[in-house]
Amino acid sequence: MERDLIRWLRQRLPAHPLLKRGIGDDAAVLDLRGAAECAVTVDALMDGVDFELREIDPRRAGRKALAVNLSDLAAMAAEPLAGVVALVLPKTGGLELAKNLYEGMIPLAEKFGLAIAGGDTNSWDGPLVVSITLLGKITPRGALTRCGAKAGDRILATGALGGSILGRHLDFEPRVAEALLLNERYALHAGIDVSDGLSLDLSRMAEESGCGALLDLDNIPIADDARRLAAQLSDGSTPLEHALADGEDFDLLLAVPPDEARRILADRPLSIPLAEIGEMIPGRGLWRREANGKLTPLAPRGWEHEFA
Amino acid sequence: MERDLIRWLRQRLPAHPLLKRGIGDDAAVLDLRGAAECAVTVDALMDGVDFELREIDPRRAGRKALAVNLSDLAAMAAEPLAGVVALVLPKTGGLELAKNLYEGMIPLAEKFGLAIAGGDTNSWDGPLVVSITLLGKITPRGALTRCGAKAGDRILATGALGGSILGRHLDFEPRVAEALLLNERYALHAGIDVSDGLSLDLSRMAEESGCGALLDLDNIPIADDARRLAAQLSDGSTPLEHALADGEDFDLLLAVPPDEARRILADRPLSIPLAEIGEMIPGRGLWRREANGKLTPLAPRGWEHEFA
Repeated sequence: MERDLIRWLRQRLPAHPLLKRGIGDDAAVLDLRGAAECAVTVDALMDGVDFELREIDPRRAGRKALAVNLSDLAAMAAEPLAGVVALVLPKTGGLELAKNLYEGMIPLAEKFGLAIAGGDTNSWDGPLVVSITLLGKITPRGALTRCGAKAGDRILATGALGGSILGRHLDFEPRVAEALLLNERYALHAGIDVSDGLSLDLSRMAEESGCGALLDLDNIPIADDARRLAAQLSDGSTPLEHALADGEDFDLLLAVPPDEARRILADRPLSIPLAEIGEMIPGRGLWRREANGKLTPLAPRGWEHEFA
Repeated sequence: MERDLIRWLRQRLPAHPLLKRGIGDDAAVLDLRGAAECAVTVDALMDGVDFELREIDPRRAGRKALAVNLSDLAAMAAEPLAGVVALVLPKTGGLELAKNLYEGMIPLAEKFGLAIAGGDTNSWDGPLVVSITLLGKITPRGALTRCGAKAGDRILATGALGGSILGRHLDFEPRVAEALLLNERYALHAGIDVSDGLSLDLSRMAEESGCGALLDLDNIPIADDARRLAAQLSDGSTPLEHALADGEDFDLLLAVPPDEARRILADRPLSIPLAEIGEMIPGRGLWRREANGKLTPLAPRGWEHEFA
């Protein structure tokens, strides 16, 4: 019952200095004095689409629902502040499920200093929906947007890409600390997280920035998962194709001026891999650069929600 | 398609001075310089539970999804600032539906000065879910919480209650302006909006405040809808019972010190009805006061999301 969940949440949700009033009122009250500009992001995840509850520990679903939102804050180079959680629960098993979802979220929230400020809990005969909204503080360096890339910028990618459906899409580490560190120390032009597929998300960043992008396919960091998935599926898709088109890597793509990119790659400031995979170019569209320098068009591929 | 919706939203969503970056990035960016403390609230509404899409214009569903959140800000006496919208759309007809939902939200957002900052759009084989998160500015008078009521406070109710299922639950006016005006001019102790039923929500406010509450049943403003519904249902429930237990009135209950309540009722500062319906009392529980002053227990009744 809703009342039991609220009682449990009051005990279980950690206190946080930002949180003037948490669970139990018509709204939570946050002290945002320290944050003149805020990033606000929302992502809703659904059972059967973003995870399969009958196959996984529900704590992993809760963790993922929070992690994808943290990844959006990372893509803006915003410091996590606070979040609210809306649950639409199945009527049977809903209370246990809700507790487990929160148990998946809480350690991740604590790791990133995020206050879980409250939420809304509903029930119905349908599958679980988890919708999380996060607020993040824009640092003095300003927000890292999708629209600031310039022709000539190098494209850097964190981590390794492809095949996250084998499990990484549930357990990935959002690149919050990496984004904040890079944005503080270096002059980044633009950033996006790879949620729908490298080639699709890169084409979006290029379009928003009014330029094109080329990829040096040999330089793309391919995840072991991408190799395993290609081997498992044996549908002719290569590991590289998985790295280009699979969604939910939740790594970062950054557009960085050439000198600054060189500096980052020399400094190696991150404990995770960082690779130069291409370049923003004048004009439009997405291209692959052959060994001889020739450009051929590359079709953006990835995950898009289809509705008509 | 998601892309078409984003293109449409960019044209259609009004600009707003708070909105530094709206639709089209990983997160929206808000200028919250003017708001040291913020209320944050989220409510998810589902087709088949909170409205029936096959029976109503979808714009009314969109309007309701925003209005219930505005009502939560009203209950905190917070000024609407900005909101984000997460949609889980059915795959067929989803684009048209999404546009209509937004068409229902936009006039209400404009009326209350709210920036619609962005959102997240998903699709699946299930029914529509709309989850909206709002930020509101806490004014210098502070937040109006559920927990500040004191024994002796008079209980004031705006509007008239009961029978909102006949249509008012879709088209009600959130009491934002009224809450802000009353909280600015008078010393209110506590407030809550009637979302789940007068008797249930009042008992929650009493419980949060560590006191009890009594109702003078003769003074409860009964909506015409409550009378119509009682007549239609002919299940023996009276209009008063509907006023006590029906949810989704989205009127305000306020706990106000006696002198201040007298002043408000003499000033008549609102253009909507405002009635004194009872009193906060020492002890616990919800009571009705008979004509002879005797107290009898009154069971809190209303809507609760059930899950086990």
